[in-house]
Amino acid sequence: MNAAQINAFYAEAFPGASAHVEHADGKTARLRLPFNPNSTRPGDTVSGPTMMALADSAMYALTLSAIGLQPMAVTTNLTMNFLRMPGRADLIAEARMLKLGRALAVGDVLIRADGAESPCAHAVVTYSIPPKKGG
Amino acid sequence: MNAAQINAFYAEAFPGASAHVEHADGKTARLRLPFNPNSTRPGDTVSGPTMMALADSAMYALTLSAIGLQPMAVTTNLTMNFLRMPGRADLIAEARMLKLGRALAVGDVLIRADGAESPCAHAVVTYSIPPKKGG
Amino acid sequence: MNAAQINAFYAEAFPGASAHVEHADGKTARLRLPFNPNSTRPGDTVSGPTMMALADSAMYALTLSAIGLQPMAVTTNLTMNFLRMPGRADLIAEARMLKLGRALAVGDVLIRADGAESPCAHAVVTYSIPPKKGG
Amino acid sequence: MNAAQINAFYAEAFPGASAHVEHADGKTARLRLPFNPNSTRPGDTVSGPTMMALADSAMYALTLSAIGLQPMAVTTNLTMNFLRMPGRADLIAEARMLKLGRALAVGDVLIRADGAESPCAHAVVTYSIPPKKGG
Repeated sequence: MNAAQINAFYAEAFPGASAHVEHADGKTARLRLPFNPNSTRPGDTVSGPTMMALADSAMYALTLSAIGLQPMAVTTNLTMNFLRMPGRADLIAEARMLKLGRALAVGDVLIRADGAESPCAHAVVTYSIPPKKGG
Repeated sequence: MNAAQINAFYAEAFPGASAHVEHADGKTARLRLPFNPNSTRPGDTVSGPTMMALADSAMYALTLSAIGLQPMAVTTNLTMNFLRMPGRADLIAEARMLKLGRALAVGDVLIRADGAESPCAHAVVTYSIPPKKGG
Repeated sequence: MNAAQINAFYAEAFPGASAHVEHADGKTARLRLPFNPNSTRPGDTVSGPTMMALADSAMYALTLSAIGLQPMAVTTNLTMNFLRMPGRADLIAEARMLKLGRALAVGDVLIRADGAESPCAHAVVTYSIPPKKGG
Repeated sequence: MNAAQINAFYAEAFPGASAHVEHADGKTARLRLPFNPNSTRPGDTVSGPTMMALADSAMYALTLSAIGLQPMAVTTNLTMNFLRMPGRADLIAEARMLKLGRALAVGDVLIRADGAESPCAHAVVTYSIPPKKGG
């Protein structure tokens, strides 16, 4: 799947989601999450759960771009390190595939405030790929 | 802070949040997240980001119950393992403090569908505690 | 496999290992690592890698006690939080199974200095279970 | 500290260690672990704990290259994903600093078998930096 196909799938499967897939090629993916004042926490900065959802969504997009539409691919592990507060900004997530196996896809995701050099969060995410039917 | 005080703080600081603190005593905390059909994913089950937000919220409540109101306590690390799909159910999160230091609080959280014995997710969460002013 | 069988397998497969399986029943496992002055770090305390190896060994023992002898079960993810320095002491590791699936086993491990109440480390460990041949 | 100084410190503080710091500049570090037949596991491949110790050592070297000799800098969190078996090979660890704060240093580490393109393991490691005395 390419970025446009993944965005179309996200719009249908996750009506509330607002992250936009800008690029996805099976090896890397790039998503943008527009700033939303409803997704802040004390300190006037994008909340942690918002960034975790973005990291998960970025690795899902990367996995779908590698294996095709498999809605039942599910996250099995997500490790998030919060590094700096992003403030009130669009967030850019860049995912990189570390391993694409038959059963598991593992990648990491760097999240930056748009225009910033230093990352505000880093995630490692594992997706479980459902076995093919028929075979 | 006790459960009622934390619920009052959550209602003000996170207007969209719907998890309810049922118990918090500095060593353990228990939260309930009512089922919300807007928080599902393909497979008709509560979404992963919803469970991550609940785990984070449970460790935040546990930390506040131990150290008092410190809105700027922030998550530094969250590791989530997804174990089973919870389906369409209220979720119960039980947090346990593993270490309460001066700078860091570390705990783990088990999430179960209400009434289920087996957990659907497990998280380990670290909060950074801001240094006291004045001293 | 029971504790004695796992200890016999460990002695053959890992000649340098010194952790002793005291109990393993498929749901929990308990291992003891005798204090070894060659496994310390600055601060005169058991080193971090020694505790990581113990956590991994505890989850391996728990997994083997659940599924039988599968030498090619391998760790896919290990998340370790170091909580307190154990000092110069035997370490006790207690592992608990969180999920035993067909392809993955997930558990957590608490490590304490022998006789201490508070844990010095906590781990979450995932093992990949090789598919059965033949079928 | 530069690579030579860190190697000298490692030789004194960790007599059994055999990883060699090839480069360390506060932003990245590169270590080599020569293959040792005593560090294998079933499958005739370098063991998981050996790779965890290498990842920890790489982030320690990177941290010391950034902040100077602080023997009491300690690991607080290490998350390891095992991706492929490295076989019987020297291992190369490349660490990258994600955040260097006053209290915490966070980085990630890619481990490859020497000459291989694909990584065999990925780690995210947090070190706690002790507060300066006197000030």
